Amino acid sequence: MRSDKGIEMKRSEIRQAQTRALEFFEKASITLTDEERARIEVADFGLNDLANQGLEILTYVNTERCCAKELVLFPNQACPEHMHPPVGADPGKEETFRCRWGEVFLYVDGPPSETISAELPSEWCRVRKEVHLRPGDQYTLTPGTKHWFKAGSQGAVVSEFSTRSRDEADVFTDPNVVRLPEIEED
Amino acid sequence: MRSDKGIEMKRSEIRQAQTRALEFFEKASITLTDEERARIEVADFGLNDLANQGLEILTYVNTERCCAKELVLFPNQACPEHMHPPVGADPGKEETFRCRWGEVFLYVDGPPSETISAELPSEWCRVRKEVHLRPGDQYTLTPGTKHWFKAGSQGAVVSEFSTRSRDEADVFTDPNVVRLPEIEED
Repeated sequence: MRSDKGIEMKRSEIRQAQTRALEFFEKASITLTDEERARIEVADFGLNDLANQGLEILTYVNTERCCAKELVLFPNQACPEHMHPPVGADPGKEETFRCRWGEVFLYVDGPPSETISAELPSEWCRVRKEVHLRPGDQYTLTPGTKHWFKAGSQGAVVSEFSTRSRDEADVFTDPNVVRLPEIEED
Repeated sequence: MRSDKGIEMKRSEIRQAQTRALEFFEKASITLTDEERARIEVADFGLNDLANQGLEILTYVNTERCCAKELVLFPNQACPEHMHPPVGADPGKEETFRCRWGEVFLYVDGPPSETISAELPSEWCRVRKEVHLRPGDQYTLTPGTKHWFKAGSQGAVVSEFSTRSRDEADVFTDPNVVRLPEIEED
């Protein structure tokens, strides 16, 4: 039961978020196939607070060597702080975020910005070097860089170009995060 | 002199093609920064026939590990047949083409299609397995796969997600191709 364990998402909540994400793909003029529309991943990171901490993801391709995704953030929605560690011979995921629509405030390891624009989604979002991405802006993260990001008040669509994605290996700062929660049919 | 060596492009022709490419980015609703708009690569492959064999390329990122580009093809413009060989420890470029706008006919190594839709851009385009890509459709090429592609009558915008891009290493079937011709200021 979600209210007890907090690590399951209801199928109905996922469907609702998928439908909402499609509105953002439309705003960004990104065309998806029917097959893709049906498999948009809705991640609440086991925190049961999708509106504030969550991410909608469409993975185009993820091979041993490279990966491309679109990320949708609803208005003011944030992806919790995490980093991509080495896995075996892989030095860790390197990723480039490119804002396609809306705006995103990205926070990364490094000298903290004097002030930051986003309200903190949780106490576990700690790195403070702000990178503001508007459509056409992009930023490349080297492996092992802690980061979190939050959409502005309109929401955002962000392309992610990266090396292989291994979500299950991601290291989140918040110990309550479960990257791949179970789904409860309802 | 271009007419003698056939391996130079005039700066004025490049500027004209860049401006035209921007119209296609607009049709595809892809936002670029001013810096990016000014550095769109125009490739005529040293063939001096840009309208028929050429490609307009914007590289977003190209690190040791991964690469993302947008490719613009003018109406009926084709990219000549080529493949990406191993380079040192790199087994060769792996790439995924995703059609964003317009349509593309992609031809790859493999059992030839019974009929093909595109008129051949040259005798050097020889592989015949046709893959028709409309917006939202994509196709992943493994390293070493010969391929060429041609836009439909509207032109096309295609995202390319790949491992590191080493254009200078590409192997073209047409011996007349020069991948990185010199530019003649005019």
